Amino acid sequence: MATVNRQITLASRPVGLPKISNFQLAYAPLPSPAPGEVLVRSIYLSLDPYMRGRMSDAESYARPVAIGEVMTGGAVGLVVESGDPGFRVGDAVVGMLGWQLFAVAPGCELRKLDRSRAPISTALGVLGMPGLTAFFGLLDICEPQRGETVMVSGAAGAVGTLVGQIAKIKGCRVVGMAGSDAKVAWLLGELGFDAAFNYKTSGDLHGRIGELCPEGVDVYFDNVGGAMTDAVVRRLNARARICLCGQISQYNLEEPAVGPRWLGQLIVKQVKVQGFLVSGYAERFPAGLEQLASWLQQGKLKYREDVAQGIEAAPQAFIAMLQGKNQGKQLVQLSESTKETP
Amino acid sequence: MATVNRQITLASRPVGLPKISNFQLAYAPLPSPAPGEVLVRSIYLSLDPYMRGRMSDAESYARPVAIGEVMTGGAVGLVVESGDPGFRVGDAVVGMLGWQLFAVAPGCELRKLDRSRAPISTALGVLGMPGLTAFFGLLDICEPQRGETVMVSGAAGAVGTLVGQIAKIKGCRVVGMAGSDAKVAWLLGELGFDAAFNYKTSGDLHGRIGELCPEGVDVYFDNVGGAMTDAVVRRLNARARICLCGQISQYNLEEPAVGPRWLGQLIVKQVKVQGFLVSGYAERFPAGLEQLASWLQQGKLKYREDVAQGIEAAPQAFIAMLQGKNQGKQLVQLSESTKETP
Repeated sequence: MATVNRQITLASRPVGLPKISNFQLAYAPLPSPAPGEVLVRSIYLSLDPYMRGRMSDAESYARPVAIGEVMTGGAVGLVVESGDPGFRVGDAVVGMLGWQLFAVAPGCELRKLDRSRAPISTALGVLGMPGLTAFFGLLDICEPQRGETVMVSGAAGAVGTLVGQIAKIKGCRVVGMAGSDAKVAWLLGELGFDAAFNYKTSGDLHGRIGELCPEGVDVYFDNVGGAMTDAVVRRLNARARICLCGQISQYNLEEPAVGPRWLGQLIVKQVKVQGFLVSGYAERFPAGLEQLASWLQQGKLKYREDVAQGIEAAPQAFIAMLQGKNQGKQLVQLSESTKETP
Repeated sequence: MATVNRQITLASRPVGLPKISNFQLAYAPLPSPAPGEVLVRSIYLSLDPYMRGRMSDAESYARPVAIGEVMTGGAVGLVVESGDPGFRVGDAVVGMLGWQLFAVAPGCELRKLDRSRAPISTALGVLGMPGLTAFFGLLDICEPQRGETVMVSGAAGAVGTLVGQIAKIKGCRVVGMAGSDAKVAWLLGELGFDAAFNYKTSGDLHGRIGELCPEGVDVYFDNVGGAMTDAVVRRLNARARICLCGQISQYNLEEPAVGPRWLGQLIVKQVKVQGFLVSGYAERFPAGLEQLASWLQQGKLKYREDVAQGIEAAPQAFIAMLQGKNQGKQLVQLSESTKETP
């Protein structure tokens, strides 16, 4: 077994789009679990847009990563050594283990995975944070009704693909905005979206949304913000609901952006806008995961994974994801072995 | 009894702040009620910011006033002739009677007033649309909790004054933004606001709000929009609630405004924003009015009226109200007689 841990730490805070030089590959001694803790060898690391926020020291809902600290992130892995009687060596677990090969975490912060039910990587996607985000953000905040039109920005992302598919399960008409023709083809051809378009080449967003949403937009699940959101707002129906889940178009701007003021439209249309963090739903995660797993087993939820190889590849894969170059859930494989012993 | 009606009609659509020339004084024959209808002589006309929207033909929740049509507006008056067995001559009523001395309306669109309970003018203020707006907008949408900080923009307006006082009844700390030192003195000295400031002279809004809301803002009742709202958003606490009731700072702009994009802050703070129209609460108006009347009788709600004299004065009073020159509920007295017969 390895005796040295490899980690990606934050070398400097990015200005605009992160650069490889904002990250550093570091080595550290293999940590040892105290009583109540578990040592995990990570197999897959999740890369998610929210991590851009953690690289910044702007005020946010979570503490920023400190310079020199291991980048924060969810990962799935196998228990190597356990100081918690609830975990045995070989157990598959998911938790906030960071960008590193090995991590120690309190057992109470880990969730054990049933490897017979689905591949462990799904605990970072459809059966993990992105799945729960789509599930609660769409169903709880937007309450989509059969026959309503649901618009999704960032539709081809880990969350967006699931929002669209769940909205289809609920009988909605689903329209997606994505950033490449290949993504659009995937949404239409495999994921069952009723309509989708490439916002980078569509020209007039307002016109395009009008064509594809002839009855207006009842629910808007926003992962992107910016001009896309401005255009959707103009197409909202009375009593529309917006789940604000992400604003990835704004995360890498060097200067704060300005845009049209449209709060008055929210009044005349009686629109609800809810800023959403999935962490607020922790008590209901088990129920959400149960439903997601059931839909997955019924073949109602499809997903793709875009897997970079090796921890050294994580920074570049993260930057590419922020640019929308991934298709499906972005993962980094940290170990080829998913066997029970390291 | 008069045999000629006097009306203010819309002469042309304003660009920017309305001008006197956008209105016209017109004469019309006295209308006659058909069966089911009632002829009312109006005593007080209500002037409200929403009327600016009706002067424009931009898409909104309500049909715009047509050129040459009588300006829309609520009024209280006395029944002069009744074709509805539910109304007798001399009954005091409130309804959407328009900017005119006499109006015919279906009985089902009028509400009869109990003149023994409160002055009839209150049916246009604390016991009318502004009162109900404050009541449902604050209590239903924002659910203020004891000890929370409630910020109100347009705090000295017909709605804002009531929002602040209802929030005080609910045990909140209430902070108001208003447009003159006299308004601020009134909020602090008579209406019980915990803090208030003149946004026109305060300079740094963000700093001033920080001083007056040392524990942040939990509830924001927005009547104004623009830079004030931008500044409040930066001071919101986690899980804050915003009732979007008006955006008067934007109504008279000749070009749509731009402002900083801050949707990302709504996400990290899990803020709810709800566009609010009181019309959506019609079924609950009786209960709301009952509570408001009870608070009024207990001396817990104070109000002021700013009364212009004569229908000819309505356009100028309306323009002045849009500029924030009124203090308290803006009314126009259309008749000096509040006796039972015209």
